[in-house]
Formats: sequence, structure tokens, C-alpha cells
Amino acid sequence: MLKLNSHPSGRHFLQIPGPSTVPDRILRAMDYPTIDHRGPEFQALGKKVLADIKKVFQTQSPVVIYPSSGTGAWEAALVNTLSPGDHVLMYETGHFATLWKKLAERLSLKPEFIQGDWRHGADAAQIEARLAEDTGHSIKAVCVVHNETSTGVTSNIAAVRRAIDNARHPALLLVDTISSLGSIDYRHDEWGVDVTISGSQKGLMLPPGLSFNAVSEKALAASKQAKLPRAFWAWDEIIAANQNGFWPYTPATNLLYGLSEACDMLFEEGLSNVFARHQRHALATREAVQAWGLEVLCQNPAEYSGVLTAVVMPKDANGQHHSADALRKVILNHFNMSLGQGLGKLSGWVFRIGHLGDFNDLTLCGTLSGVEMGLDLAKVPHQRGGVLAALSSLAHSAKVPLAQAA
Amino acid sequence: MLKLNSHPSGRHFLQIPGPSTVPDRILRAMDYPTIDHRGPEFQALGKKVLADIKKVFQTQSPVVIYPSSGTGAWEAALVNTLSPGDHVLMYETGHFATLWKKLAERLSLKPEFIQGDWRHGADAAQIEARLAEDTGHSIKAVCVVHNETSTGVTSNIAAVRRAIDNARHPALLLVDTISSLGSIDYRHDEWGVDVTISGSQKGLMLPPGLSFNAVSEKALAASKQAKLPRAFWAWDEIIAANQNGFWPYTPATNLLYGLSEACDMLFEEGLSNVFARHQRHALATREAVQAWGLEVLCQNPAEYSGVLTAVVMPKDANGQHHSADALRKVILNHFNMSLGQGLGKLSGWVFRIGHLGDFNDLTLCGTLSGVEMGLDLAKVPHQRGGVLAALSSLAHSAKVPLAQAA
Amino acid sequence: MLKLNSHPSGRHFLQIPGPSTVPDRILRAMDYPTIDHRGPEFQALGKKVLADIKKVFQTQSPVVIYPSSGTGAWEAALVNTLSPGDHVLMYETGHFATLWKKLAERLSLKPEFIQGDWRHGADAAQIEARLAEDTGHSIKAVCVVHNETSTGVTSNIAAVRRAIDNARHPALLLVDTISSLGSIDYRHDEWGVDVTISGSQKGLMLPPGLSFNAVSEKALAASKQAKLPRAFWAWDEIIAANQNGFWPYTPATNLLYGLSEACDMLFEEGLSNVFARHQRHALATREAVQAWGLEVLCQNPAEYSGVLTAVVMPKDANGQHHSADALRKVILNHFNMSLGQGLGKLSGWVFRIGHLGDFNDLTLCGTLSGVEMGLDLAKVPHQRGGVLAALSSLAHSAKVPLAQAA
Amino acid sequence: MLKLNSHPSGRHFLQIPGPSTVPDRILRAMDYPTIDHRGPEFQALGKKVLADIKKVFQTQSPVVIYPSSGTGAWEAALVNTLSPGDHVLMYETGHFATLWKKLAERLSLKPEFIQGDWRHGADAAQIEARLAEDTGHSIKAVCVVHNETSTGVTSNIAAVRRAIDNARHPALLLVDTISSLGSIDYRHDEWGVDVTISGSQKGLMLPPGLSFNAVSEKALAASKQAKLPRAFWAWDEIIAANQNGFWPYTPATNLLYGLSEACDMLFEEGLSNVFARHQRHALATREAVQAWGLEVLCQNPAEYSGVLTAVVMPKDANGQHHSADALRKVILNHFNMSLGQGLGKLSGWVFRIGHLGDFNDLTLCGTLSGVEMGLDLAKVPHQRGGVLAALSSLAHSAKVPLAQAA
Repeated sequence: MLKLNSHPSGRHFLQIPGPSTVPDRILRAMDYPTIDHRGPEFQALGKKVLADIKKVFQTQSPVVIYPSSGTGAWEAALVNTLSPGDHVLMYETGHFATLWKKLAERLSLKPEFIQGDWRHGADAAQIEARLAEDTGHSIKAVCVVHNETSTGVTSNIAAVRRAIDNARHPALLLVDTISSLGSIDYRHDEWGVDVTISGSQKGLMLPPGLSFNAVSEKALAASKQAKLPRAFWAWDEIIAANQNGFWPYTPATNLLYGLSEACDMLFEEGLSNVFARHQRHALATREAVQAWGLEVLCQNPAEYSGVLTAVVMPKDANGQHHSADALRKVILNHFNMSLGQGLGKLSGWVFRIGHLGDFNDLTLCGTLSGVEMGLDLAKVPHQRGGVLAALSSLAHSAKVPLAQAA
Repeated sequence: MLKLNSHPSGRHFLQIPGPSTVPDRILRAMDYPTIDHRGPEFQALGKKVLADIKKVFQTQSPVVIYPSSGTGAWEAALVNTLSPGDHVLMYETGHFATLWKKLAERLSLKPEFIQGDWRHGADAAQIEARLAEDTGHSIKAVCVVHNETSTGVTSNIAAVRRAIDNARHPALLLVDTISSLGSIDYRHDEWGVDVTISGSQKGLMLPPGLSFNAVSEKALAASKQAKLPRAFWAWDEIIAANQNGFWPYTPATNLLYGLSEACDMLFEEGLSNVFARHQRHALATREAVQAWGLEVLCQNPAEYSGVLTAVVMPKDANGQHHSADALRKVILNHFNMSLGQGLGKLSGWVFRIGHLGDFNDLTLCGTLSGVEMGLDLAKVPHQRGGVLAALSSLAHSAKVPLAQAA
Repeated sequence: MLKLNSHPSGRHFLQIPGPSTVPDRILRAMDYPTIDHRGPEFQALGKKVLADIKKVFQTQSPVVIYPSSGTGAWEAALVNTLSPGDHVLMYETGHFATLWKKLAERLSLKPEFIQGDWRHGADAAQIEARLAEDTGHSIKAVCVVHNETSTGVTSNIAAVRRAIDNARHPALLLVDTISSLGSIDYRHDEWGVDVTISGSQKGLMLPPGLSFNAVSEKALAASKQAKLPRAFWAWDEIIAANQNGFWPYTPATNLLYGLSEACDMLFEEGLSNVFARHQRHALATREAVQAWGLEVLCQNPAEYSGVLTAVVMPKDANGQHHSADALRKVILNHFNMSLGQGLGKLSGWVFRIGHLGDFNDLTLCGTLSGVEMGLDLAKVPHQRGGVLAALSSLAHSAKVPLAQAA
Repeated sequence: MLKLNSHPSGRHFLQIPGPSTVPDRILRAMDYPTIDHRGPEFQALGKKVLADIKKVFQTQSPVVIYPSSGTGAWEAALVNTLSPGDHVLMYETGHFATLWKKLAERLSLKPEFIQGDWRHGADAAQIEARLAEDTGHSIKAVCVVHNETSTGVTSNIAAVRRAIDNARHPALLLVDTISSLGSIDYRHDEWGVDVTISGSQKGLMLPPGLSFNAVSEKALAASKQAKLPRAFWAWDEIIAANQNGFWPYTPATNLLYGLSEACDMLFEEGLSNVFARHQRHALATREAVQAWGLEVLCQNPAEYSGVLTAVVMPKDANGQHHSADALRKVILNHFNMSLGQGLGKLSGWVFRIGHLGDFNDLTLCGTLSGVEMGLDLAKVPHQRGGVLAALSSLAHSAKVPLAQAA
């Protein structure tokens, strides 16, 4: 028998930028017997979570829930709205935008990739310019990642919407919010997004295994014409069955138990409080990074992520970055904390601190303490005082007791 | 807050043919914090479950695990091995075979459906005859459901294999074991199956949310040539990442915890004991049905399912079947038990008793008692004594104490 | 590592007359992190359970909750109200009444035991006669077991109260409801009981570990004069601290989580429905016993227990009872069910069927099926048809769907 | 329904000196169905925990396990070994020693209290002197608290043993290890202790509800003569029943599940590693306190506790201590952390930081961060830099990766 969770003493600090720590309330909610997915008790559950999840996406439109990982929801958004060979405009914000583009290629689409430097969000002006050129409207969709999990950079989705409108272009707007939903303010309806993609294991505080497509009327209309083959991902049968709180195939019942509890928790705290909490922790984290004399990967303060902070390792005398992976290993072995690795072209010289989901001030302080001690043990040049800076930041902003704020 | 699991007093009897009852050991195993899916602890988990699951499929070949429902694994088997417009031979064993065929059509395949009466399994002779005619080898795959969940009829997969071999036909053999794996003896390698499809929520005793493709070498070779677009379902990247115990995208970690425990439980009891237990319960169930004077849907004793028994409602004076749904409702309301409804063309006149997964003699007795009392309350003509017949059957076969048998 | 809960497949049937099966809702409620027992969150919990538990005892008086087993609550009732050498009148209803008497002796009291035959409840007339004789009022307390767990016989507490009143005797009335509270109608105030003793692991559906004293004003007054040394059990400090929802020493926090959930469950179903459910199951059980041709230990129908049924093993040709323990062992080994053994002088020739707590019709049917098959396998002479009789009884009384009844 | 565990976002920091945080492994172990406490599965459990717990006490003698809180084990130790009016020598190390003395008085014993200043441990020389005076051996027992939870001061038990031996006095040695067992090295046999008292909710990482008496042969012999009335607490019947792994009354089964898992965890880490971990965290905590310019209550470095650190609030210009309770309230409200209050005569001017049980470096860093920010917000005069000092201390001693150390 595999011995899981036989960590050294005390709680593991899971400070990757997702899966985030699953709170006890959600774990316990999921730990109930599976029920008949065609019975009345399930129906009440189905109706509740379908209503709740709309509020989280800030939409009146249907949200399709898949029993799959977030990658599946990327695929679903594309196969429901597009046809083989369709031209789509994607923006290279980082590793996950790149993976999404590869996925589009595998599905026989023709993605055009606006190059980025992985340190900025999507440039709405570039998108507008490109769409303005496309007078024949060969571009069928614009795909943007809201919070690029590999870089800790967000993109301004409202600005992208305006860019499309300014160009009077009919392309659909598809947005990945896998790592931002439930953590960073996101407005599917107000921002005129056509398909919003998301997943369960970040701001929703669930284990991985559920993913989402929020679907505008325009996207629904497009799906009637779209020719890419699809069955498991097809919106039509799911949305039809959802009318009564059911699914056309066996749903992931126990994860839906968890989703119900997760929505309760988000609404109890209040979505705006949730968003503010993430920003506050991100600010304190950046102040720690700055105090250490290290560099935040994201170069545009307007685009700092509330969910994670990617940190650049300092260079040695030879201009080589100290190893981020050696640092992470020291921290895992000595302090029982997992940090996010550098992905894709950031591999080896960037590490990522997740500060999302079911999280609070003291857990952040523990997290930053682990980084500071790790920098010391791994002999990475830095100034002490990051934790101290974070304490100042947090204490300063802790004017209102949590109980009142919530 | 939704109040789930506020059943009337006592345990709900979930006697649908899946999802089956999730045992406490598995629920507790899943109720652990999610871990870093790129860390060493996860790696040990990944390697263990990938090795364990092969034993359950009785194969040396790779088994691909998806974070999705069983329907997804149907799709995966097709898109990895076939090309648009490919001709596939499918066998109409019942509702699920029909759904699989529709799914194939949505994916732009050309399924040919050998008609069945929903009361027998796949007829290997018909398959052989059809393949023999197909001298041009336009048929690329033969698709059969091992245990048709809608009818309680199994198909002889070894015979289908021989049929293909006798016809010297190169078609792939794709088999759905969603409701049989871990309950009815199934041998991926010995029976020469190319892709075996399965799901987590039946014999594996997990909640829904994982699905499987066991993949032969021939299927792997076919996947190199197959032209259906695929990304999420693509075997290649998953099998490559699995070499090290990881997945290319975020796996459903907590369900994998459960899978590890489920395999431990199956191996502790012993697969052959598990299979024998299911047959023994199926026999006792059929003896009860017979004693009630009712009819088992399956008409070929060699094809009786060990997993479920579908029962035909008797007819009234006008030749109308008494309502199966009225009966199920009476039983749910009075006795807190869920039974399976009649699906597709069986709707209204057939109900299904699940006797699979984490199950035992006394739970079966309770189940059959609920049916017998329900028949009484719903005024369905029947003879009493079904439970009595089952008691005789079970007591007769209970020669060996469970502890020794296991 | 000990491998617990590695039963054979399926749920164990725990049909001893307590501990009863702990329902999932209670197990999950207890599975939360322990909190600060001096903080505001605990205080809310403390106040809630102290209010809830009064309703279960049907009293306005304080109920003292101990972090101990029921035996401790026996001791608490005595040491708080009596002085060394005090004369108490106890009634020999069975094994537990006998144990309580021994406990009184160990505490230096002088119990007088009215002999019983273990097949009847306490005879109020005998008690009245004895008290009437005691003109000097040397008897300080009358101690009766409400539901004798060893015999399945209840005693009429209201009648005992009237007996004391008729005799115009000032003795306190102390009643053990360890196995009846929350299962059989019990009214601390209406029946004028001075100290009611109970425990957590029967009708309250919790694991063992909490026990109770409901305390009348007269008992409280007596405690000011009582001279038996006491500290842990002393009511005064506990009742004082309880005013604010706290305890003078560390309470069993996680069991209190469970108690809160248990009370919610009892009130959701409705106490009167809970009581009726137990009677209905007891009736069906007795009809099964009768159909087997076996004898119920309890000889007075007015005193049948709703919680358990004790069954007398038939005699062989030599007038020897067949072995109850051999029967129980066969049932445990073959059918994964625990039944209660014969205790004290009932050892070997009586077994006990628990039908209490979180329980329902189909679980009872499974239980009785296990007994019927066990009688067969153990070659105990009996007539078949017990289960059939129970089915008739249950179906007959199942006029109202559970959902409406609840 | 009470809404428990509806804390603000993130994990509560339960940094009182017990109950300590219950780790997931133990919560899950306890979350299993209760089993028959007279059956073979229970027997295996009983034997295992009775053997395991001896290793934790470092004894070959029997350890009696009670389903009660620690206060009950205090009572048990006294009532099993002493007679009414017996003279016992107790040492005033703090609040809990004082409560134990009051409990002895309630039990009709005659405790003599050697006065202490609540800032030092028991002075063996004083004990020796007092015993030497007691030439008539009227003193029947010496009672000492190993780790005084109210002060964070330990007493040298080996020295007390030598004191008794030097005085050639036959008094029994009774030691309270409620808050030290499983955290601080403690040797029942080697130190010649007669009764060691302990509880479940500190170093054993369980919820409250179990307590212990480890019993020497001399204590067992004394119990044969002891005249205090006892029943629930009586060792004789329990030790007799324990021979077969059972208890004379219903044990707290689910807490025993947890105890089994707790012992597994302690042995996996290794007791000596557990003890070293506590000392290391205590050292880092004291370095933080010192850096803040605050005072540790314990005045003798040889007696610093590894389990908790009691901190003295600084005085204002008027010589009044700043309020410890105001500080704790600020920290609870702003940072979701519970600290221990000052008890008894320490009330209001001392607070206590627990660093025991299932604990690690980063949780300690979070804890100390909460204190440092709280001092700031509550305007308590202090120097910053406590957390920084702790980081230095922890990083310095973190030479060996945890995985290797364990």
C-alpha cells in the first residue's frame, strides 16, 4: 500500500500556483457517498451548482461543467465554435498560451501567434491593429489567457474587448481564466467574452477534475455552424440536459458536492473581498521580493497577478542565473514547501510563489519565511528582510478585522 | 447552503448499476489534501496506480488514465485510432451501444450497426460473416460493449476476437468495459483486445471522474496514422509523460488517491474472488426474480451479467406493462433505495438491480427485500418468496467463511 | 500499521445494541480540526449543544455532558447526590442493572437489590411496597434502568415515579437511559426523574465517549449535601462554566461537533417520528422471531424494547440450549454482521439484535436475512419465514412515504 | 444548524498549548465507522494501542487508557493509590499544579503545597528536605507536573526521583505529563515514576477525550490497599480486561483509531526526532521573544519547555502590564490565530505560544509573524525583528533535510 501524506511533521505548504490547498470544508463535502445521478437529490444539487457557478463567472449565460481537467475546457471552447482550418488569433503571454496554441494546431486550426516576451500581458493595441488589417474577417476567434500561470502576468480583457469592437471585427473572444476565476475580478458578461474557460483547482479551491465553458449567445450561435467534430465536448446536449439539473453522461458527482461548498464559501466571504484579499497578498509578496533584491518577472505593475508571483533568480559573476530548481529542492527538503517551477523558456531561472485560494496572512508569512531561509541555505545572493517587508505591508493594510471585512 | 445527504434515517441503498457505492476506505483516501502534481510524492503515486491498473485490465500494455467520465474514454478510443469517415462495425447490444454509435457519428465516423434485440449479447458469428464479406477491409474497427449496462447482458469478447481472426480481418477490436471492469473477468491481453475502454464508478468503486483506455501495440501503431483531430485525448503525450509517473496536464489527483486504494482493495480480496462474488450475487438475484414470477431481460443464460439484473415488468390484462417507474418511485419513497430505470426503448417497462462493487450478502438481501415490498405496495402482480429464494441460494453457496475465501 | 476496516467486501452490519452505526453526517462533522476550547467559536458550539441536548431529554433542567463513557455517568449520578454508606434501592432488570449495583458498592454505597428474572421490567408495585415500609426514609435513591440493554426489556418510569409518590417517599429517582435516549420516548421532566443518565453511542448515533446527567432541582439541592468525594464528576463547576458555553476542563470538542449534528438529525426527523420508527422495526423483528419459532426473551409485551430484541436459543433433545455464540460466530464469518452476545447469566443461550439509531427498513431486512441464513448454516432448529414475516409487517405499516413522514 | 469551521479564508492557526492541531492522518483514521467493541477486529486494535502507548511512555508497565479528559486521569491516579485523608506533597509550579491540588482536596486528601513562583520548576532539594523531615512517612505521594502548561516551565523528574531516594522515603511519585508526553523526552521506567498521568490532545495530536495512567508495580501494590472509593477509574478491572485487548466498559473506539495512527506517526518520525524538533522550535521562539525585547516567563534556561513559551507583556509608564488579552484578541481577529491566555495569577499579563504536536518550521514562522504583527497593531512596545531572529535560528539548525532526519 502506498503511504501517501506521510510528510514530515506538520502541514505541507502547497504554494504552487495551483492546485491550491483544498480547504477542509470542501474535502469533507466531497467525502460523502456518491448518489444516483438521475434522482431527485442529484437534481437539486445540479440546479444549485449550475446557478452558483454563473455568479462566479459574473454571467447570466449558461456555464457548461465538464468532468475533465482545464485542458479539456480549452479544447471544448475551440471545437464547439470553430471549423477545421479556421484562422484564430492567439497571444503569446507565456507557457500556457503556447500550450493552448499547440492544442489548437492539433485540432487542425490555424493559429496566428502574436509574439510576446512572457513578461507582459496581451497588448490590446496589437490585437486591434491585426484585426483592422483582417478586412476579410478570416480570423474567427481571438484567444487570450487572463492570468498567465507561468509568468504571473494578467491581461486586460476589457481592453481586448474594446480592441475587437474598435476594429469592428466579428471574431469571437475566447478567454482562459483557469488560474484567475474566483481569485481575480473577472466579468464574463460585462467584458463581452464569448467563451470563458476555467478549471476547478485554483480559485475554486477544489481538486482538479472539473472544467468550465461560460458561453455567450454569440458563441452558442457560432456552435450551430461550427464543423469541428465533437461529441464529449458538445455543448448542445449538455445545456439541454442541464435545464433539469442533469447531465447527458455520468457527472463527477463528488466534485460537484465540492463545487457547491466552494461557491458557498466564496459567497460567504463575498467575491469582492476574495479579490481584495488576493491583491493584498500579492502586494506583500512583491514587497518581500523587492526587499530580497530579487526581480519580479512581470514588468508592468498594471498587470501584476493577484494569484502568483514569478521571481527571477539573480545572476552569478558569470552572468548565469542561480538555479531556481536547486532552490526549490532545498526548500522542499528542508521546509516541506512546494513552489512552482519555471515552465518552458523560464525553466531553471524562474520560480513561482502561489498565494491563491484558501489562504491567509500567516500562511503567506510562513511561505515567504520558507523562501527567505531557502535563499540562505541555497546560497543565493539576496538581502535579508523580505519577510520583514511583508509583515509591514500586511500589518499596515490589516486595519479591519477579518471578521468585519468578511 | 444545499443540504445533501439528508436522507431519511439509515443508509441509502444505491442499487443502480453504477455509480456503485463508494466504500469508506476509498472516500477517506480521497479526502486528503491535493499535492503538487509535479513533485516526488505525486510521482510515487502515479507510478503505483499506472502499474496497479494494468493488473486490473489483465494487460502488460499501457493504460491511459483520463480525468473524465467514461463517455470521454469512448471518444478517446475512436479519435486516437481512426480517421474522418472511417467505417466501423458496431453491435447494438442496447442503449449504451447505441449511444456509442451516435458518438461515433458525431465524430464523423461511419458506423455500421448490427441490429440486436437488446436481450442478447453480440453475436460473434454475425460479426465474422460481416467481416468476411468486407474483403476490401474498409472496416477499420469492431466495437463491442462487454457488459451492456442497460440490459444486463454480457458479450463474449473472446468469441468476437476469434470471429475477427477467423475472418482474417485487420480491424481493430475496441471493447467497452465501463460497467464490467473489476466486477466480471476481463482479459485485455489474452483476448487480443486493441482498446479497452473503462470508467471509475462501477467495479472500481470510485466516484465518477476517471476513465481509461488500455492500448495494444496494434492500436498504438494505428494511432500514428489516425487522422481524427485530437489533443486532450491524444495518447502519445500522456504515455510519454507516464513513463515518469506524471501527466502532461493536471491529473485528478484526489481520484488517483482513490484509485490506489481501490486497487489495493481488489488485490486484497483477489480478483478471482471478486469475480466469483459478483456471479454469486447475480445468481441469487435471478432466483429471486424467478420466484416472483417475473422475467429477466437477458435471454441467454451464458450471457447473464454479474453486475446487474434487468427485470421485465409483468403485463396487465390489457397487455400493458405495469410501470417500472412507478415501482421505482414507490421503492425510493418508502424504502430509500435507488434502482436503475429502463433506458431507451426499455423505458417504462424494465428496471435494473445493481449488485456490483463494494457489496455483500446482507446488502443484497436488503435490496431484494425492498423490491419485494415495493412490488407489494405498487400492486404489481407477483408471487411472494423472491427473498426467500435468494436466502436459500446464498446460504447454500456460503460454504466458506468470507474471511477464508478472501 | 494496523489495517482497520479491512472487512470483506461491503458494509459491515453492526447490529449490536450499541454502539450503533455512526452516520456519515456525524462522522464528517467530527472530522474537523479541533478548535480553541476557550474561544468564541467554541462558545457558540457549547451553547448550541447544551440547548439541544435538553430537548432530547425533554427537560428544562441542566444537562451535564461528560467526556467519558456511560459508566462514568452512572458514577457521576451517585457521587453527586449521595453520601458514603447511603442506602439505595436498585432493581435487578438484567446485566447492566447488576453492573450499576456493583459500581454503587465500589463507591461505598449500600444498594438493596430487588430481584428480577431478567425477563421483565422494574415492578413499580414492589418498589412502592418497599418504600412504604421505609418509614424512616433511610433509602436515599431509587435506581432503575429504562431500557435494559442485556434483555431488551423496558421499565415504566412514569409508573415508578407514581410508586414513589404514592409512598410519599423523598428518595431521589435515578434512571439509566444509556440505550434508550433518542430511540424510545423518554421524558425527564414530565416523569419527575431526578437524575437521568445517558451515553452517546446508541440513540444519539455518536461514537462512545460522551455521557450525560440530566439533573432536576431536587437533585441539585441534594448535591449540596452529598458527601461522597468527587471532583471530575462534580456538577457544580461544570454547570457554572456551562452558563457561558464553556467547560472547566478540556471538553471532547470533536465529539461535541458530532453531538451538534446528531441533534440536528434527530430534530429534522422529529423525535416522535424517531420513536415510532424504532417501534416499527422492533415489531417487525419480533414477528420474524416468532415466525422462526424462537422465543423473545422479554415476556411482557408492554415492556418490549424498541431498541433491541433479545432472542432465546431453542433447546436440543437434551434440554440444552443451542449455542448463541456459535450462531453469532457463523453469522460474523459468513455474513459480516455483528450481533450482541448474551451477557451475564444469559451468556451462551441468548443473542441480541440491535435495531436502533441510524437505521432503516432495508437494513433491518438485511439483518434478519443474516440471522435466518445463520440459523440455517449453524443448524439451529427453526422454521423458515422470519424474513418473510418481517417483510409483511414492514410493507403493511409502510403506508406513508418516509419523506412525508419526516 | 451551527456553522462550524466557517473561519475567514485559510487555515486557522491553533497555537494554544493544546489541544494541538490534529493532523489529517489522525482525523481520517477517526472518521471510520465504529466497530463492535467485543469483536475480533476491535481486539487487534486494542492490543496494538496498548502495546504502542507503552513505548510512548517508555515503560514496560501497564498503561491504563480512559475515555475521559486529562483531569480524569489526575483523579484516577489519586483514587487508585490513596486513602481518605492521606497526606500528599504537591509542588506549586503553576495553574495546573494548583488545580490538581484543589482536585485532591475535593477527593478528601490532605495536600501540602510547596510554594513556587510560577517561573521555576519543582525544586528537588526542597522536596528532599521536606521528605527527610517526614520521618513518620505520613506523606503517601509526591505529585509533580512535568511540563506546567500555564508557564512553559518543565520540572526535572529524574531529580525529584533522586530526591525521594535520597530521603529514603516510600512515597509514591505521581507525575502529570499531560502536555509533555510525545513532545518532551519522558521516561516512566528509567525515572522511577509510579503513576504517570497524560492526555490525548497535546503531543499525541488527538482531539481531547482520552487520558492515561502509566502504573508501576509499586503503584499497583498500593492500589490494593488504597481506600478511596473508585469504580470508573479502578485500575484492576481495566488491566484485567486489557490482557485480551478489551475494556470492561465501552471504550472510545474512534479515538483509539486515532491513537493507533498517532503512535504510527510518532514512531515513523522517531521519538528522539520528535523531541529534538520541539526543542528546536522552542529555541527559535525564545530567540524571537528576546529580539522583540520581551521576557520569557520561565527564568531557568534548564527548565525551558519545548512545548510552549509563555511571554510576559511589557509594562507601560505606570508600571502596568499591557494587556495580553487585548493582544490575543487583535491577533485572533486580524490574523485568525488562537494563542493561549494567561491562567490564574498570570491572567492578563502573560500569553502563551504553543509550538507542539504536528508542527513545522513554516507554521512556526507564520505563528511568530502573527505575534509580531499583532504587537504592532495592538501598540505594544517592542522591537521588530523577532521573526528575523527566528528565521536565522531555524535556518542555522536546518542542516539536515527533514526527509533524512526522519
